[in-house]
Amino acid sequence: MQFSSRLIEDAVNAFASLPGIGKKTALRLVLDLVQRPTEDSVQLAHAVARMRENIQHCITCGNLSDQTTCSICRDQRRDRSIICVVESIRDVMAIEETQQYRGVYHVLGGVISPIEGVGPADLNIDTLISRARDGEVEEVIMAISPTIEGDTTIFYLNKQLAEAEVQISSIARGVSFGGELEYADEVTLGRSIVARRKL
Amino acid sequence: MQFSSRLIEDAVNAFASLPGIGKKTALRLVLDLVQRPTEDSVQLAHAVARMRENIQHCITCGNLSDQTTCSICRDQRRDRSIICVVESIRDVMAIEETQQYRGVYHVLGGVISPIEGVGPADLNIDTLISRARDGEVEEVIMAISPTIEGDTTIFYLNKQLAEAEVQISSIARGVSFGGELEYADEVTLGRSIVARRKL
Repeated sequence: MQFSSRLIEDAVNAFASLPGIGKKTALRLVLDLVQRPTEDSVQLAHAVARMRENIQHCITCGNLSDQTTCSICRDQRRDRSIICVVESIRDVMAIEETQQYRGVYHVLGGVISPIEGVGPADLNIDTLISRARDGEVEEVIMAISPTIEGDTTIFYLNKQLAEAEVQISSIARGVSFGGELEYADEVTLGRSIVARRKL
Repeated sequence: MQFSSRLIEDAVNAFASLPGIGKKTALRLVLDLVQRPTEDSVQLAHAVARMRENIQHCITCGNLSDQTTCSICRDQRRDRSIICVVESIRDVMAIEETQQYRGVYHVLGGVISPIEGVGPADLNIDTLISRARDGEVEEVIMAISPTIEGDTTIFYLNKQLAEAEVQISSIARGVSFGGELEYADEVTLGRSIVARRKL
C-alpha cells in the first residue's frame, strides 16, 4: 500500500496489528474515523490507553478488573462457597449472561496444552488450590471447554484438589464436544451449570 | 454482554462503533491488547488520536494530507498538466500502486447520487473547475467507478468542464461494470489508465 499521508499510514499499521484485521480493513476503519467527528477518535484512543494502563488481574480470582479485587469477588451477594473454574474472562462473561450462577469464579488464563507449551505453572492454579483449602469453599465447578486440553486440565486440577475437602463437579455435557465455551447458546450453557455432575 | 470491568466495556464499545466490528470481535481485539505490552495499546491510541487531530484535506486536490498541501501536489516531479479525478483517497492509493501515472489528482469525496442525497454541491467540484481553467492543465482523466452514479458524475463534470480548454478522457473499460475501483487488480487498473479514451 502506498500512503500519501504518514498519519494515515501509522494509524492503519496500528489497527492492522490487531488479530483478524488486514491492511484493507484497517484502512476502512481509519477512513471511517476521518469522516466522523474528531471526538470519536479521541474517545477511542483514550478508552484503549486508559483500559490498558489501568486494567489488572483480580488478586483473588484472576479475572480482569478495574481494581485490585474484581467486582464479582467484591459483591457481597455472591456465594463464596462455590467457585466456578474457567479458562478466560470471556467464559466468565458467557456464564454471567445466563444468570444461572451466583457463586464466584476462578480464571485459569488458559488450559494445559503440551503442544502449545502451556504447563500447569503457566496457569493461575496455585491460588485456586489455596482458595479451595481455606475452609469457606464447599464446591469447585469445572466449567472448562470439553476439548482434549480441557479434559487434561480438569484431570490435573482434580488430582491437585483431592486433599482439599471440597466437592468437585463439572458442568453437564450439553456443550458440544470440540466446541468453544463462549459460542454455546445461553440456554445450553445455563442448563449445563444447573445440571452439573460430580466427578 | 455483561462486563465485570468498566475499562474493558468502554474499550469494547469504542471498537464496536467502527464499521464491520461487532461486540464479540471488539472484545477479541481488547483482550488481545490486554495480553500484549502496554506500549502497543498506547501506540495504537496515539496513532489514532494524532491522525484524527492533524489530518487535513489538501487545499489543491482534496486528498487526505499531513500538511496544507498533500505530498503528491508538492512533488515537483509530477506532471501538473494532467489531473486524474477520483472518488476517494482509496482510489488515489490504488492508482499510485500501479506506478503507471505521473500526473496529479483531484479527489471528489464521492459521486453524485440522488438516492443517497449527494448532489454536486456536496462534492469537491468547484476547485476542480477552477484548476481546469488555470491554463496549466491540458487533460482531465475521469477515473471514476463504472457505476450508474459514477457515469452520472462523469456526465456532469464533462458538461461543467466544457468551457475550460482541456482534453477530457476516461480510463478505459477493463474495470468490470458495477465493480469498485479499489478492488480491481493492479494490471487491469494500470492498463485502463494507459489506454484511457477521449470522451
